Amino acid sequence: MKFCSQCGALLTLRIPAGDNVPRHVCDTCDTIHYLNPKIVAGCILEWQDRILLCRRAIEPRYGFWTLPAGFMENGESAVAAAAREALEEAHAVGEDLVLYGLYSLTHVSQVYLMFRGQLKDGYASPGHESLEVRLYAEDEIPWDQIAFTVVHETLRQYFAERQAGAFHPHLGDIVRGPDGRFHIHRYY
Amino acid sequence: MKFCSQCGALLTLRIPAGDNVPRHVCDTCDTIHYLNPKIVAGCILEWQDRILLCRRAIEPRYGFWTLPAGFMENGESAVAAAAREALEEAHAVGEDLVLYGLYSLTHVSQVYLMFRGQLKDGYASPGHESLEVRLYAEDEIPWDQIAFTVVHETLRQYFAERQAGAFHPHLGDIVRGPDGRFHIHRYY
Repeated sequence: MKFCSQCGALLTLRIPAGDNVPRHVCDTCDTIHYLNPKIVAGCILEWQDRILLCRRAIEPRYGFWTLPAGFMENGESAVAAAAREALEEAHAVGEDLVLYGLYSLTHVSQVYLMFRGQLKDGYASPGHESLEVRLYAEDEIPWDQIAFTVVHETLRQYFAERQAGAFHPHLGDIVRGPDGRFHIHRYY
Repeated sequence: MKFCSQCGALLTLRIPAGDNVPRHVCDTCDTIHYLNPKIVAGCILEWQDRILLCRRAIEPRYGFWTLPAGFMENGESAVAAAAREALEEAHAVGEDLVLYGLYSLTHVSQVYLMFRGQLKDGYASPGHESLEVRLYAEDEIPWDQIAFTVVHETLRQYFAERQAGAFHPHLGDIVRGPDGRFHIHRYY
């Protein structure tokens, strides 16, 4: 961020009065430009004993499998965002969505809101961001071809809980370890 | 948003190729500037049979009571953001935070993440955004002086569940009714 989106002047990076974090400040029109985490809303959609995955037709992680998920838009609710992503990426209608996981990805300033719900009529077909979509049984999940750690962890938790017979919402952070790999810190 | 924050050129509002929503697009450097909802993280902190409220020293709703809450920062986790807000607004240390409510405020494109936890040592004192802070028992809550609908609804749910003896996470949207007033749509 170099220029003020309000007046076009050059920005200064400094700590404003009364704050304790450097911000992009416009000294011409006095606007402070805050940067905040973005929300990614997604969902596990169930049909009988299967769940919906999409194979990515876009970068990053082109060709890898993921849950339908994407950036929440201004003016929509979190539930609506998760449902919209399933519709866009897999022409899938999600029903009875409940919040299943909240994960903070501090390294990219994203918060994932992962829902769980039913896939209406078991129907899905690839949207323009998907190479293919498929309903997977647990023993078919391509664990070594999952696009993102947060999706991998969400799926792992889901199948563990399904076997145990009860789902509970989860809270966690995805963090980079000393070895450079990402792993999950689970609060619960 | 009028100017490109990358190159300073004037922006155009139009639907980019492959998209279906108008975006602020820079035709000089080809950057698309997305606008996304902001996250507000806050918490109910408990001490014995009381909870912490803060009286706002800032607009909007100067002088009204609220739960400690504020905009999540880039690079922090949701739990850390809620704890930081309690520390900044009330010098209060929150422990054992669990997610209690997720509320979408579509009219302002905000998502509230409300946690519940313990107030360490029962200690609180006003931070620079608070006129005063206080530990309230249920029958002392100033219901007609609560700053925001989302806080009012969070507190109402909290005390109802406390009386029932069990807390469950909640999902809802705060929406404006035909009468212009805000109310909650609860999914659960």
